[in-house]
Amino acid sequence: MPEQKETMQAIVKAAAGPGIEIREVPVPAIGPTDVLVRVEAASVCGTDLHIYNWDPWAQNRIKPPLVPGHEFCGIVERVGEDVTAVKPGDFVSAEMHVACGKCLQCRTGEQHICQYVKIIGVDSDGAFAEFVKIPEANIWKLDPGIPRAWGSLLDPLGNAVHTVLAGEIATKSVAIVGCGPIGLFAISVARLCGAAQVFAVEVNPYRRELATRMGADVVLDPAAGDAAARILTATGGSGVDVLLEMSGHQQGIRLGFLVLRTGGRASLLGIPPREITINLAEDIIFKGATVQGINGRKMFETWFQMEALLKSGKLDLDPVISHTIPLANFADAMELLRTGEAAKIVLTKFE
Amino acid sequence: MPEQKETMQAIVKAAAGPGIEIREVPVPAIGPTDVLVRVEAASVCGTDLHIYNWDPWAQNRIKPPLVPGHEFCGIVERVGEDVTAVKPGDFVSAEMHVACGKCLQCRTGEQHICQYVKIIGVDSDGAFAEFVKIPEANIWKLDPGIPRAWGSLLDPLGNAVHTVLAGEIATKSVAIVGCGPIGLFAISVARLCGAAQVFAVEVNPYRRELATRMGADVVLDPAAGDAAARILTATGGSGVDVLLEMSGHQQGIRLGFLVLRTGGRASLLGIPPREITINLAEDIIFKGATVQGINGRKMFETWFQMEALLKSGKLDLDPVISHTIPLANFADAMELLRTGEAAKIVLTKFE
Amino acid sequence: MPEQKETMQAIVKAAAGPGIEIREVPVPAIGPTDVLVRVEAASVCGTDLHIYNWDPWAQNRIKPPLVPGHEFCGIVERVGEDVTAVKPGDFVSAEMHVACGKCLQCRTGEQHICQYVKIIGVDSDGAFAEFVKIPEANIWKLDPGIPRAWGSLLDPLGNAVHTVLAGEIATKSVAIVGCGPIGLFAISVARLCGAAQVFAVEVNPYRRELATRMGADVVLDPAAGDAAARILTATGGSGVDVLLEMSGHQQGIRLGFLVLRTGGRASLLGIPPREITINLAEDIIFKGATVQGINGRKMFETWFQMEALLKSGKLDLDPVISHTIPLANFADAMELLRTGEAAKIVLTKFE
Amino acid sequence: MPEQKETMQAIVKAAAGPGIEIREVPVPAIGPTDVLVRVEAASVCGTDLHIYNWDPWAQNRIKPPLVPGHEFCGIVERVGEDVTAVKPGDFVSAEMHVACGKCLQCRTGEQHICQYVKIIGVDSDGAFAEFVKIPEANIWKLDPGIPRAWGSLLDPLGNAVHTVLAGEIATKSVAIVGCGPIGLFAISVARLCGAAQVFAVEVNPYRRELATRMGADVVLDPAAGDAAARILTATGGSGVDVLLEMSGHQQGIRLGFLVLRTGGRASLLGIPPREITINLAEDIIFKGATVQGINGRKMFETWFQMEALLKSGKLDLDPVISHTIPLANFADAMELLRTGEAAKIVLTKFE
Repeated sequence: MPEQKETMQAIVKAAAGPGIEIREVPVPAIGPTDVLVRVEAASVCGTDLHIYNWDPWAQNRIKPPLVPGHEFCGIVERVGEDVTAVKPGDFVSAEMHVACGKCLQCRTGEQHICQYVKIIGVDSDGAFAEFVKIPEANIWKLDPGIPRAWGSLLDPLGNAVHTVLAGEIATKSVAIVGCGPIGLFAISVARLCGAAQVFAVEVNPYRRELATRMGADVVLDPAAGDAAARILTATGGSGVDVLLEMSGHQQGIRLGFLVLRTGGRASLLGIPPREITINLAEDIIFKGATVQGINGRKMFETWFQMEALLKSGKLDLDPVISHTIPLANFADAMELLRTGEAAKIVLTKFE
Repeated sequence: MPEQKETMQAIVKAAAGPGIEIREVPVPAIGPTDVLVRVEAASVCGTDLHIYNWDPWAQNRIKPPLVPGHEFCGIVERVGEDVTAVKPGDFVSAEMHVACGKCLQCRTGEQHICQYVKIIGVDSDGAFAEFVKIPEANIWKLDPGIPRAWGSLLDPLGNAVHTVLAGEIATKSVAIVGCGPIGLFAISVARLCGAAQVFAVEVNPYRRELATRMGADVVLDPAAGDAAARILTATGGSGVDVLLEMSGHQQGIRLGFLVLRTGGRASLLGIPPREITINLAEDIIFKGATVQGINGRKMFETWFQMEALLKSGKLDLDPVISHTIPLANFADAMELLRTGEAAKIVLTKFE
Repeated sequence: MPEQKETMQAIVKAAAGPGIEIREVPVPAIGPTDVLVRVEAASVCGTDLHIYNWDPWAQNRIKPPLVPGHEFCGIVERVGEDVTAVKPGDFVSAEMHVACGKCLQCRTGEQHICQYVKIIGVDSDGAFAEFVKIPEANIWKLDPGIPRAWGSLLDPLGNAVHTVLAGEIATKSVAIVGCGPIGLFAISVARLCGAAQVFAVEVNPYRRELATRMGADVVLDPAAGDAAARILTATGGSGVDVLLEMSGHQQGIRLGFLVLRTGGRASLLGIPPREITINLAEDIIFKGATVQGINGRKMFETWFQMEALLKSGKLDLDPVISHTIPLANFADAMELLRTGEAAKIVLTKFE
Repeated sequence: MPEQKETMQAIVKAAAGPGIEIREVPVPAIGPTDVLVRVEAASVCGTDLHIYNWDPWAQNRIKPPLVPGHEFCGIVERVGEDVTAVKPGDFVSAEMHVACGKCLQCRTGEQHICQYVKIIGVDSDGAFAEFVKIPEANIWKLDPGIPRAWGSLLDPLGNAVHTVLAGEIATKSVAIVGCGPIGLFAISVARLCGAAQVFAVEVNPYRRELATRMGADVVLDPAAGDAAARILTATGGSGVDVLLEMSGHQQGIRLGFLVLRTGGRASLLGIPPREITINLAEDIIFKGATVQGINGRKMFETWFQMEALLKSGKLDLDPVISHTIPLANFADAMELLRTGEAAKIVLTKFE
């Protein structure tokens, strides 16, 4: 039995303020139902940029010192004495939303909207480190054949899968407004699940190019002014069956509802930074539309769905990975995100 | 066989402008699939007040001359040669939304949100007359034991039933925001269908009194400032399972979403007269809420549901009927509505 | 702090064979996430009679020695160090199906059909004793105002609630075939949740009398030969919207499907002791019927629903309690069940 | 304007007894809401073989003389004066189930299970002729780019689509038991709609070969004895998420339920010719399974779904068309069906 390391390298938000540090910190101690995972790859989320920049959201939520990072995969290093779901050597990822297990939502199959959820990498130490501690209930065992980079993307892929499969999708026409990584994944997932037509709407030309690569039938620039008209024309004047709102922007939301057909489904994932205005009468009520708030991933229905999609061999995540850089160069990733010329940045492990 | 009348008395919006007239007009001619109904009772909807006042909505939609009136019941006078569903002497009401039958919505069981719907009493001559012409497909046969006044209320009762039963209601806590006639009906329908707790929110004290009579467990005045807090306290801090939004007011909508629990259902029926602002992130997305636009009544699922509720003998519509006046005194009804001290006004037939 | 008892009285299936014994056994030791409950009342299920009689099912499933009993309520005596959901003195019942937490069903909100479920009182020591050990995750806290006898009935009441609410019930016509305790509860639950008409079908006259007391609109004896015809006539020839099959008998199942309308829902709870024959074409396929297998209670949606029904004050369980006898007289309860003149037998605690 | 033909060639079941005749019969007269279609291609259903053979079902249902044929496509020849949905020259197919429009099912969006349905080609003259008369409400306009042969297959393709899409299919494992034409179509539809794994079970080696061509992942011969074991092994011991039962055979049904996972969906389309025996407890109740009777195609949701699938360009119907022969050689088609070495036989028009 190998000697256990006592300390490890980690990205640390050490104090209330912008930036991060790389520090040597203790390897997390695990309890009887915990799993210690050696991180193989992690990926960067917009949340990490908020933490890095120390914006108002971060100031309100984050309690330094904190190791961020909530998208990752790795190899089980060791397990607590009561753990049976995985064993050392297993390839795993994890759902980083830790549900309380006791509220109404948790006791009725809705842990993904637990009233008292804590997020690993936000509310407790996360995966931008050599090791991360995960409760057994949150571990997800992966097929060893899945590429490491892909294994680090299951959190945002899960957002996309949850959104796409929150209602009927086969044979439906779909507008995906906002083509960040989640929107890009959603394009491909929708197509694999039988969507008839996928319209992607995105202001950033770099991302529009990726939308095409992910399989969108029609890619539109809302700034060009005719995006709504083109979607309406292409759907015989009726509009799309399904709106997947992933921009969180006032104008994107407005356009999305405009092209949603009477009786359609709108699944909202993008988070508007402030209140928006909406014409409830025209956009929702007279239309008899159904609007769904989408949060996280279903625990663990979405994970089973991702597993099936990845096993099918038809889902290609590579186009969304714009950069792969070492975890030690974390600050570079932050700069890349600011340029708008990055999609998903995968961080390889500390050496 | 009695001689057929050739003309009849009717309330007529004769010209573009406020007011109405009582005129002698031709009895409608019926085609092979039409039913001519002798109106026994009608009731007044807010739409009729818009038409009477000739407000911007009416100016845009109504083409005079028009006989308004879309809530009624009566006795079949005669039927077209191909009609089999009813015969002269039958007691009937009717769904006044005439669906096109050919659009996507109509061909998929969603006639209530037909893209090309025409409304009898709005787009063609309605029921504020001695006789009204109804297509056979829209006729609904009533049990002769149903009171005439109640038979004239099935359109708004149907709105309430459609809203309440648009999702699970049994054992659920419910907030009904806005207690006009539809909200008042919804209180009673929700209770009969097993709602656990019904909170009614209404600014008008006259209507709050009616909300109590219809069976609300808790009746709250939003102007008092503590309505939301009281609902949250009464639901253990979580909020209600179901929001039935029937006010169409910015403040009512805000309060409604504030008290909706994580994972809850919001069914929106009240029509805001203009755009509203909403905190999509807090009110819908993080909550994982489901929001439904509710339009009209399901054709004809809602009618079967109403029939069953009325047959049960447990649904009492009388408290909502604040006034009963002759159809000839239509202008008085308009005045009553303006006072705010009226709920549903039933119009008895021309003598 | 009071001295803790080390032994307690219990009903014990001591050996492979008919009968039971009353023995002094150790009070269960609890772990960090367990709750020890002092049993206040328990009730008898058909399963207990199988165990008592040592029939083939029991021979195959039960490993003596075993304390049976899976329907109960009581007062929390003490809790493990990690327990937060309840504290000593709380009034509680419990879901006795202990789900594995790790299978597909458990990880997708379907713990009630866990592939590896263990039942307390069947697979481990149960509630026919002074104390019973329950995992915190299975404890259900009760309002102290609920009568002790009612608190012991939540397992079968939950079966009824799960069955009734497995689909739409408000405004629907319902046939309940088989009026054992669960069928009797279902009558009342269906009515409280807005069922339009409840037809109860039962061969035993003692139970037919109870069906009437629980609120069935029409109570029918299938042996009289005209039960199906009467239900069809009362539903205008179409049949009922919902079939709740609680007899598990070939003839009951046949009659149930015969009276189910085209497009109806059949929820099957009664367990046939052997294969049955069925006309799939006429009973299910041409009808476009939906058939649901119902197992246990949803964990814990059904418990929230029960809580709401009990709080409403409209659900009366008393008619179903035919006898109340001391736990020490357990063998008498077995005799009563054999007579067919008992419904639910509540066992009061050891003195 | 061309002169209208007064007579036409048709396949006619002229008298009560086996066989058919080719006769010159009057071209159907159309009413104001009818469409007369010049048949371009038709295809043969098992029902046509029943009629040809004059088996007990046919003796009970068919009233000679009758022109059979209910799977076809063609060109609109002329339309009644009130028809607006199509015009002469349009390429069309039709839903041949003519719903009454007035029963509970028809008035609640369930026309596909109308209690009083009449089938064109069974209850009135059908499409094995130069012309067929179709009510406007039943006409379905086709994209002119769809091959004639495919246009004749929408009735059975619709059965498949209705069955596959009667519940969730994306990311699910599916067993399709029985690979006649509908089962074969279902394989491909399930894959296009994101099914994770498709197991096809079929006794006939000719059809097993076609199942492979349609895209089944695993094709199994139930006679080999290990079909169930192989499906269970391939699904980790749990069984499939979805069973599509298309054999109507006792042994197929038994095998299907055996491999259905706990909590799974079973959609039954195959019609057993007599009662079957089933272990309700193990197969449905303990499993908490949902069983759906599938009849016809949803009117017209299924047709919109087919349209989308055909437009996608990914659905290939050709492998299922085993033979193409002239309508005049109808008797040859009957012989081919008896050999078991035919799948779908397309009949080209009379010359």
